[in-house]
Amino acid sequence: MPVPGPGYSITVRLEAPPSASAAGDLTTAIGQVGGVLTAFDIVESHSDAIVVDITANVSSADHAEDMTKALNALSGVNVRKVSDRTFLMHLGGKLEVNPKVALRNRDDLSRAYTPGVARVCQAIAANPDDARRLTIKRNTVAVVTDGSAVLGLGNIGPAAALPVMEGKAALFKKFAGVDAWPVCLDTQDTEEIIRIVKALAPVYAGINLEDIAAPRCFEIEARLREQLDIPVFHDDQHGTAIVVVAALRNALRVVNKPIEKCRIVVSGVGAAGSAIIRLLLRKSPADIIAADIDGIVHPGRSNLDDSLGWVAEHTNKDNVSGTLHDALVGADVFIGVSAPNLFGAEQVATMADDAVVFALANPDPEIDPLEAQKHAAVVATGRSDYPNQINNVLAFPGVFRGLLDAQAHHIDDDMLLAAANAIADVVDDRLNASFIVPSVFDAAVAPAVADAVKTAAQKEAKEEVASTS
Amino acid sequence: MPVPGPGYSITVRLEAPPSASAAGDLTTAIGQVGGVLTAFDIVESHSDAIVVDITANVSSADHAEDMTKALNALSGVNVRKVSDRTFLMHLGGKLEVNPKVALRNRDDLSRAYTPGVARVCQAIAANPDDARRLTIKRNTVAVVTDGSAVLGLGNIGPAAALPVMEGKAALFKKFAGVDAWPVCLDTQDTEEIIRIVKALAPVYAGINLEDIAAPRCFEIEARLREQLDIPVFHDDQHGTAIVVVAALRNALRVVNKPIEKCRIVVSGVGAAGSAIIRLLLRKSPADIIAADIDGIVHPGRSNLDDSLGWVAEHTNKDNVSGTLHDALVGADVFIGVSAPNLFGAEQVATMADDAVVFALANPDPEIDPLEAQKHAAVVATGRSDYPNQINNVLAFPGVFRGLLDAQAHHIDDDMLLAAANAIADVVDDRLNASFIVPSVFDAAVAPAVADAVKTAAQKEAKEEVASTS
Repeated sequence: MPVPGPGYSITVRLEAPPSASAAGDLTTAIGQVGGVLTAFDIVESHSDAIVVDITANVSSADHAEDMTKALNALSGVNVRKVSDRTFLMHLGGKLEVNPKVALRNRDDLSRAYTPGVARVCQAIAANPDDARRLTIKRNTVAVVTDGSAVLGLGNIGPAAALPVMEGKAALFKKFAGVDAWPVCLDTQDTEEIIRIVKALAPVYAGINLEDIAAPRCFEIEARLREQLDIPVFHDDQHGTAIVVVAALRNALRVVNKPIEKCRIVVSGVGAAGSAIIRLLLRKSPADIIAADIDGIVHPGRSNLDDSLGWVAEHTNKDNVSGTLHDALVGADVFIGVSAPNLFGAEQVATMADDAVVFALANPDPEIDPLEAQKHAAVVATGRSDYPNQINNVLAFPGVFRGLLDAQAHHIDDDMLLAAANAIADVVDDRLNASFIVPSVFDAAVAPAVADAVKTAAQKEAKEEVASTS
Repeated sequence: MPVPGPGYSITVRLEAPPSASAAGDLTTAIGQVGGVLTAFDIVESHSDAIVVDITANVSSADHAEDMTKALNALSGVNVRKVSDRTFLMHLGGKLEVNPKVALRNRDDLSRAYTPGVARVCQAIAANPDDARRLTIKRNTVAVVTDGSAVLGLGNIGPAAALPVMEGKAALFKKFAGVDAWPVCLDTQDTEEIIRIVKALAPVYAGINLEDIAAPRCFEIEARLREQLDIPVFHDDQHGTAIVVVAALRNALRVVNKPIEKCRIVVSGVGAAGSAIIRLLLRKSPADIIAADIDGIVHPGRSNLDDSLGWVAEHTNKDNVSGTLHDALVGADVFIGVSAPNLFGAEQVATMADDAVVFALANPDPEIDPLEAQKHAAVVATGRSDYPNQINNVLAFPGVFRGLLDAQAHHIDDDMLLAAANAIADVVDDRLNASFIVPSVFDAAVAPAVADAVKTAAQKEAKEEVASTS
């Protein structure tokens, strides 16, 4: 059962008797049903009644209703209205488009629009690269989804995916000054998605694919990378891989093991899992064992698609087969991007000493982190209510800031690794088993990532020029 | 030759001798080459020299160079740098995307993004209409072009069209609080454009087609109107038609002629011309004669495409043929959306008494407005440097404001006429031959248009409900 958190916070407005015990009665009632009180505001005070706004975190709609009922059942209490702070925040959407130029009078208008704008158009027609100087292309990223794999909610479609894409765009601006725009496509046809993103590209300097189901996402990403001259990033793959590699670098520093001596188990071989494996291979671990719902991935397994076939070929040196539990025996590192509650403390006990466990399934991890801690030296999750939150917000804003600043035409693994190293380095001497990644609100993260990615991108651009001249 | 205007304004930074006559010499030199001085700023003053920023309107790149040379030729003057204010304004583009919600801490993040956002997604998946309440869809319009007919510049492509679409989006926000986003498509295939706009629609509550060449634009508009449940507006057609009908209503009030007795000549039967004809027909003029580069449109003319065929069928009651000049003889109204310099004062003299001439070709009208004024009672152009500017900015912001506020699912001619009437009515008792439309900066226009369109849209929505129940 989920725990109450700020993602589900309700405000109950109620009338209560003006007695000395009213506040105590109300807060006690909330505690008894498991709500977490976060604010208590007296809105009106009369001789016969007070009006109070009580704000509390709850865990579910049923929980919210239980709490409201418990309050209403108190003697003299009358609940007037219950509002959900998350829905209130979403009314009218989370983004707006604003002019950056003044439009006060005819002179402004004749420069920003006709007739003056015609000369700017002609300049770009004559020299297409000027679009990066004279238009929003310079700083604009498309956040593209088909709504087929949204959060843990599955295939909910493009309209229902929009709040996530808006949130993503808001984070792009907040953390890295990037102007991002949601593109929620009412099609789930691979070829059509590729054609559409290609057709949209003139306005953007980068494409961020988001919440597109595997294996379609691999084809879309690969083909767009081939065909577009702007970087294409799939956050579910590359964003996750960057932060996992960053966190693992610091976790292995805590336990003092070189990655070359580590056997790493990866559970889940969808978009995130396969991208993590690809990036980890660049760090030459002793071995990687991938597992999914059908057990350990090995070349002899039937029905391997292209992506799984690639994984089978590049991991599992000793060609072992078996279950996830088998894979864990003696492993140094577990990285889960799969499903809730796959194993318990007893399986962690079978891992090597000083085991590292990243249980990233959301909202419910592969193993309860408190259970994992019984035998693991370092534990991380995707949740904000435990230490070591592996959160893509650490990566994508800075990555695109760097790509845009370098005017990069593509993105590759060297840039992803540069981003991972930059995130890991921000932790610096604060490193310990409960602090292997910085906070998403650490203002040093995005600039450090941007700088590392920009430098890597510029280095490659220079090498390309050198090799072709 | 174009006249100097604020759309082409340059700032020349130069060193000049500190003599008493320096300012006079400089401004005289500008006047002599035909520049229009708008600012003179002394930036530095030393014993041996002054540094001055001279800002002036010019008419062309050659003119700017002539002026710079004339200044540099003055004794002791040394031009350091010439900057173009229109290009300076465009650096980095004209739009930005901003979060409307605070993202200060983990609690904010867990509501605007994961995990809280998941409940908003689920609400929309369960009830798709909630997208208009809980996402940016409520207030968002796509400004869609394929770059095939941009301003008077022709087929310059999607990247070069972007400055116009950005300007349009900026005007949407400035005049009507609409969040508009540029969609510049790297394809000119009719079927593909239709598929793409359909696929993009989940994010938007309206589609504004822009600068798409005829006849492709008619097919795209018609098919999208059929297939989408949000209004589709083609500004080059419908925006222009609204403002022309508004201006004509007031012009005919000035000359005191009922439209039912007027013969109207429309020159140019592309996107704008045919839309003007369609909307004018709703006002039952005595007759409309359409003409294009091949002369008067009549059913016997060869090579009539669908759009021209429709025009031939619905205009020209007496089935006349001939040239534009023939059509003008005895006509009450001329409306040109065609090409520069098609006729002169002598042709206007052949029109009926109290003739109305709208010469809207941009930047150079069908007839010099000063020539037209010799024999016409009311003259309008598309230019801001003459009275009676017919400018789409009067229409599109308010039209979409009204459509969005009514949550309209389509747009039709009744709404366009409501918008036209609202624009005409804003002029009220200020009406005279030089003031038939309000200024684009008249703050009363957009709200009046929005209100009229909203009312018309709501009336129809009610009638639909009534007729289906």
